Amino acid sequence: MHTKNGNTDPAVNAENAAGVLSSLPPETRCKALENIAEGLLRRKDEIFEANAGDMSAASESGLEAPLLKRLLFDGSKLNDCVGGIRALISMPDPVGRTLRRTELSPGLILSRVSCPIGVIGVIFESRPDALVQISSLCVKSGNACVLKGGSEAARTNSALFKVITDSARGILPDGWMGLVETRAGVDELLKRDDCVDLIIPRGSNAFVRHVMDNTRIPVMGHADGICHIYVDARANMEMAVDVCIDSKCQYPAACNAVETVLVHRDAAPKFLPPFKQALDARGAHMRGCPRTSEITACEPAGDADWDTEYLSPVVSVKIVDSIDEAVNHINKHGSHHTDAIVTDDDSAAEEFLSRVDSADVFRNCSTRFADGFRFGLGAEVGISTSKIHARGPVGIDGLLTYKWILRGSGQTVAPFASGQESFTHREMPLP
Amino acid sequence: MHTKNGNTDPAVNAENAAGVLSSLPPETRCKALENIAEGLLRRKDEIFEANAGDMSAASESGLEAPLLKRLLFDGSKLNDCVGGIRALISMPDPVGRTLRRTELSPGLILSRVSCPIGVIGVIFESRPDALVQISSLCVKSGNACVLKGGSEAARTNSALFKVITDSARGILPDGWMGLVETRAGVDELLKRDDCVDLIIPRGSNAFVRHVMDNTRIPVMGHADGICHIYVDARANMEMAVDVCIDSKCQYPAACNAVETVLVHRDAAPKFLPPFKQALDARGAHMRGCPRTSEITACEPAGDADWDTEYLSPVVSVKIVDSIDEAVNHINKHGSHHTDAIVTDDDSAAEEFLSRVDSADVFRNCSTRFADGFRFGLGAEVGISTSKIHARGPVGIDGLLTYKWILRGSGQTVAPFASGQESFTHREMPLP
Repeated sequence: MHTKNGNTDPAVNAENAAGVLSSLPPETRCKALENIAEGLLRRKDEIFEANAGDMSAASESGLEAPLLKRLLFDGSKLNDCVGGIRALISMPDPVGRTLRRTELSPGLILSRVSCPIGVIGVIFESRPDALVQISSLCVKSGNACVLKGGSEAARTNSALFKVITDSARGILPDGWMGLVETRAGVDELLKRDDCVDLIIPRGSNAFVRHVMDNTRIPVMGHADGICHIYVDARANMEMAVDVCIDSKCQYPAACNAVETVLVHRDAAPKFLPPFKQALDARGAHMRGCPRTSEITACEPAGDADWDTEYLSPVVSVKIVDSIDEAVNHINKHGSHHTDAIVTDDDSAAEEFLSRVDSADVFRNCSTRFADGFRFGLGAEVGISTSKIHARGPVGIDGLLTYKWILRGSGQTVAPFASGQESFTHREMPLP
Repeated sequence: MHTKNGNTDPAVNAENAAGVLSSLPPETRCKALENIAEGLLRRKDEIFEANAGDMSAASESGLEAPLLKRLLFDGSKLNDCVGGIRALISMPDPVGRTLRRTELSPGLILSRVSCPIGVIGVIFESRPDALVQISSLCVKSGNACVLKGGSEAARTNSALFKVITDSARGILPDGWMGLVETRAGVDELLKRDDCVDLIIPRGSNAFVRHVMDNTRIPVMGHADGICHIYVDARANMEMAVDVCIDSKCQYPAACNAVETVLVHRDAAPKFLPPFKQALDARGAHMRGCPRTSEITACEPAGDADWDTEYLSPVVSVKIVDSIDEAVNHINKHGSHHTDAIVTDDDSAAEEFLSRVDSADVFRNCSTRFADGFRFGLGAEVGISTSKIHARGPVGIDGLLTYKWILRGSGQTVAPFASGQESFTHREMPLP
């Protein structure tokens, strides 16, 4: 469909391309990125026109203002995209790095070398700039990709896809990037565990869960973001209020916003009244456990509240008797995403950081710092709540794996098995 | 069943224990290992008696000699197990290591710290010593585990389980190790994606495939081991014969034994006759493509041979016209496990090592080197052909993940979002 080699399944085309992509030299991948950046600038009118079509269709269908803002692809977003691509070009090459080198025996040298994963399937939300970011991350890391964007952005995505693949033609192998344009196409993609090595779903919780339940391909991402802050008995109360307000109100729809604040019983009388006052001042709501409502007027929290990601200016509050109760609540009700403690007590802090089983565990700062850019990882591939491969905010490293390369001069195992020869296992300096 | 807290599901008990295990200090985990080593030595008669029961039942049922040898748990195997545990005790602690440290802003320090994965499910073959090795690797790495061994070894496994859990009682949390004793128990285990973080299946291809097809839990392992050697036009022929013979005959039932030898057409007349002669001398069989049989007498290879793991002294041979054809054959028919090239040509070697998409890619040495012990990784958890998390031979590192710990002094995101403050993202030395 999108390639010249006659196969209409983008996953198959991507797999064919991946074998070539993985051994292209860094200069070739950077040249492709430079051409893509230039192509986007040169053909911007084509892209803006397609986006105008999406925007007017979306307005007519009554899409809400924040979503319209995400859908818009204008000069400013284009410049951000091109800036992002040029930043990737100037980054050191992540492929082919020797991560470890060991002499197994004289003349038999083992290296662990970074390499692309292969074919990455990414299903993303309405922002068309995500298509540019993800495809350029894949080029930099030597991966082929199959992308599916939000249907509201179909015209823009199609134009961006055309410009990007045209710009890289003759430099990258045909099929290196595939575009899926229907929901049926997504279901097909999820079945291609023979071609696709990793699926990164970004979007609503329900959608991510659907993906996780309907594929044998490894999935990197997070469904829920139920984050907690525990205000310890020995918290600085002013800091606790500031951190909780920032974590909830700075951007309530984010996955790293706090949903439940757990308050030690000794801190509750000092913490809750100013916290409630600060929430009121920002038009945010508090739902509390019975003990909370004895201290400050609030809506009652039901059992379901402890398992709810509000994605809105609502926070649930529970009074706990100990740090142990707080940790157990978090490990039971949380989504292993980001959880924080506010305390001046070093040993309570270390206990919390060690025992909470989450990708990100924070002391005395906002949960909103859980983000690839803020962590200094560069472009963010996503946030993972799975426990293997990559955890928490994932940068370009999450798109890489490694292979073991062993270079010898005719060695066989037999003399080592018989004890005639023995291994040296000497760690060697990296090249 | 095996624990005091009343829950009969070992996966649930293991999950409860994992939260405690992950924050035990290294000394406590080492103390548990020391007690386990002492317990095994002290109660060896109990274990040997159980093993005698398994051995006589297995002899009566006509189990073959090599399997009987694997089933035997005698003084020598006990000493190996205890030696392995003491080696683990003296290894540096792998948990809580700071892998990276970044200042995000003055006083806001991000650390990436190694931590246990949580609950590991391991389903292993008939060797009872595997139970000791796996459980002690889990103790060292702070993971809880649920184990299922081969049914032939049920009595021995039950005795080892009892001795190990008795020895660690009061040091490790109850439920840290669970034993599943029925096939139905395995099916239950595979359903517990709410409790179990990683499944490591070891055993027959059919079984591993069954596991991969019947669980949502991430699986680390390999189903097939279809390994190749490509004898290049510029191979040293004597070396090529040695490496191929070792790769096939040193232990034909291993997953890293070679199944298919691909021979460049220019090398075939010089390579095939001595290779056939060496196979004959070892009672091994060659199945060849039509061009192969023009050069040397052999059984004909059918299409199915290129996708077959013989696990026996049989090797298939195919003549190819180019390195490109060899690489494509391997990427299509191989199992991404271990593939080797024999050549004196550096650029052909580097092309092969870069383009073959396998966990282990070797030049001028036997495929049989693909092994955790031979790689110097210490105890081997397994060999992974998946492309994420861990690839190839996996040591104790494969049982670890990481968490991001952010320590601040009240920082909120708002001033960074408004541009009032900016990130420093300064890499810091490791502690």
